[in-house]
Amino acid sequence: MADHDAHSTVGAEPPTLPSLRWEEPPEGPVLVLLDQTRLPVEEVELVCTDVPALVGAIQRLAVRGAPLLGIAGAYGVALAARRGFDVEEAAGQLAGARPTAVNLGYGVRQAAGAYAAAREKGLGEEGAAQAALDAARALHRADALASAAMARHGLALLDELLPGGSHRVLTHCNTGALVSGGEGTAFAVALAAHRQGRLRRLWVDETRPLLQGARLTAYEAARHSMAYTLLTDNAAGSLFAAGEVDAVLIGADRIAADGSVANKVGSYPLAVLAKYHHVPFVVVAPLTTVDPATPDGAAIEVEMRSGLEVTEFTGGLPAAGAEGGGGHAVAPLGTQAYNPAFDVTPPELVTALVTEEGVVSPVTGTALAELCARSPRTAMS
Amino acid sequence: MADHDAHSTVGAEPPTLPSLRWEEPPEGPVLVLLDQTRLPVEEVELVCTDVPALVGAIQRLAVRGAPLLGIAGAYGVALAARRGFDVEEAAGQLAGARPTAVNLGYGVRQAAGAYAAAREKGLGEEGAAQAALDAARALHRADALASAAMARHGLALLDELLPGGSHRVLTHCNTGALVSGGEGTAFAVALAAHRQGRLRRLWVDETRPLLQGARLTAYEAARHSMAYTLLTDNAAGSLFAAGEVDAVLIGADRIAADGSVANKVGSYPLAVLAKYHHVPFVVVAPLTTVDPATPDGAAIEVEMRSGLEVTEFTGGLPAAGAEGGGGHAVAPLGTQAYNPAFDVTPPELVTALVTEEGVVSPVTGTALAELCARSPRTAMS
Repeated sequence: MADHDAHSTVGAEPPTLPSLRWEEPPEGPVLVLLDQTRLPVEEVELVCTDVPALVGAIQRLAVRGAPLLGIAGAYGVALAARRGFDVEEAAGQLAGARPTAVNLGYGVRQAAGAYAAAREKGLGEEGAAQAALDAARALHRADALASAAMARHGLALLDELLPGGSHRVLTHCNTGALVSGGEGTAFAVALAAHRQGRLRRLWVDETRPLLQGARLTAYEAARHSMAYTLLTDNAAGSLFAAGEVDAVLIGADRIAADGSVANKVGSYPLAVLAKYHHVPFVVVAPLTTVDPATPDGAAIEVEMRSGLEVTEFTGGLPAAGAEGGGGHAVAPLGTQAYNPAFDVTPPELVTALVTEEGVVSPVTGTALAELCARSPRTAMS
Repeated sequence: MADHDAHSTVGAEPPTLPSLRWEEPPEGPVLVLLDQTRLPVEEVELVCTDVPALVGAIQRLAVRGAPLLGIAGAYGVALAARRGFDVEEAAGQLAGARPTAVNLGYGVRQAAGAYAAAREKGLGEEGAAQAALDAARALHRADALASAAMARHGLALLDELLPGGSHRVLTHCNTGALVSGGEGTAFAVALAAHRQGRLRRLWVDETRPLLQGARLTAYEAARHSMAYTLLTDNAAGSLFAAGEVDAVLIGADRIAADGSVANKVGSYPLAVLAKYHHVPFVVVAPLTTVDPATPDGAAIEVEMRSGLEVTEFTGGLPAAGAEGGGGHAVAPLGTQAYNPAFDVTPPELVTALVTEEGVVSPVTGTALAELCARSPRTAMS
């Protein structure tokens, strides 16, 4: 298992968190991922030389988070093209690696579309592969810009909603640089508030079963020296009741055309608590997360994950396989578990949706459609 | 660590779950506890020969659950008396072992009061020690009877609230034979429904941080061959949204005079979810849990536990000490955690309170006072 002393390597804040990068060593192009399953104890990189390796990394959550999945998917297509594999087949494998995050399919289509268009224009394999790589890099850059824009819009919204200027923000799951080509979605807003001296406290839900809050958000918050406190998801209710939460900021994995938000399981209970306590519940997500093809919340496919993630403790890692998670049993053998990865929050519980193009509030299908029409990024097939 | 093969010893259902018993071997009286921190993997008994050992067992949750703590406290006083220790000092140590469960202090006072009264009547040490033991045994028997009565009243209430006769019940933490001299509180109601063929599903919240749902409630449900499914506390919201929960049944650690209910952290968010979804939220607790001396929810002292229970994974066990939990780190070193053991649900969110003397609904201070006046068990100092 991991070595506690490895903690000491996590000290001074590096300029950027390299959650993903493209490299071209002499042996051929590779996609290098920061293995998020090893955090916060170790910073270990995974080098993917082909699409099956990347699909495996996506499925065991070594790389995760809606926007980053889109970027990873696009680079995966470029990797297949550059290494001479069947691009269409690779695109299919990548897009199907996880079902809920719409960005993954979007990123794959961007790169595969660029590849196909180049081929149609008569370019050879090399030129078409370069077109796919250019598309992935453009998506990567666009996502970093989108992060910065969301942080700006989100902070302006917080300042408008909470005139005191000293925000206590509750967040769930992980939505920072580890999920993005930039500084993330919801976390980027909290980070912007921190940099302006206007973040009094970041309340970090641990986010069972895979503990992305404890492992990843706490790691990012510590890197930035933010004032943060970790809690079990159960304890959020006590904070609301004590008036200790000024706003909830979360990300999204898919937003339906009516504004319903699929996000990490546990988001919906927070939305209900926020409503009950008259606390703003703000979703921060790039427009690529909006899926016009999904009409409403009921139409969102929610990924059901292995019950072993609940019946065994695996240090926050996904269960190794159906035959056993390889973890420490915390429930009797044979216990059945219900383990949806996401839940769906209806638009009436969302105070505002912050995107790179601006803020939607109240969240309605019409308002969302108008915003999407302004952005070239959501012109999806 | 625990051996997985020990699971095989948990098979056929024994008639009772010996969570606690008094024994008198030749070496002197002892209190034998089932060590709940070792479940569900192993059934290991702890033999307490003195009060410090029992206080330690209470503090590290080897014995836990509001009614059982009262019984343990009473036997602890009898143990001190029989073994010739200072009874008043022992009573003080026991009553202060954990702050929130009112039953602990109640049980201690019952036995210590019986001891003091016997001494005042001129009985010697031996007679007074016997009086303390008799008081503990009476409390133990009364709790078993109270369990049976709560189960009866609770099932009648379920049948009234849910005419369909096929109940899907969500529960939190552990409230069965492991917390009681009988079959428990909320769990006893679900068990009664199961025995009548009217329990369609028991949804078991895992109950972070110490996983009493996964470790203990799932263990008890499996022993009784109930149809149960485990879930992370986060996933309860999805079940409510899908219409899969007909009622919530929970226990209580302290009920204030106004009907505010302190129970395991995570209960209050369930109450808010239940209210939002128009699902009955039912608290099942013996009248000894009612504390007339605590006027309202704000006056309830909530135990704050070590943050190490959140920042480290200890297999569901309490952190070993302030210096480090001895578990697997799941958050960066130095992470601060907010870890209240309980939360408080206001009476307006409680559909009904089921006690051994009957059901209170709606829950008001006046209705509660009337019920308590009918019971000799709540005539507390």
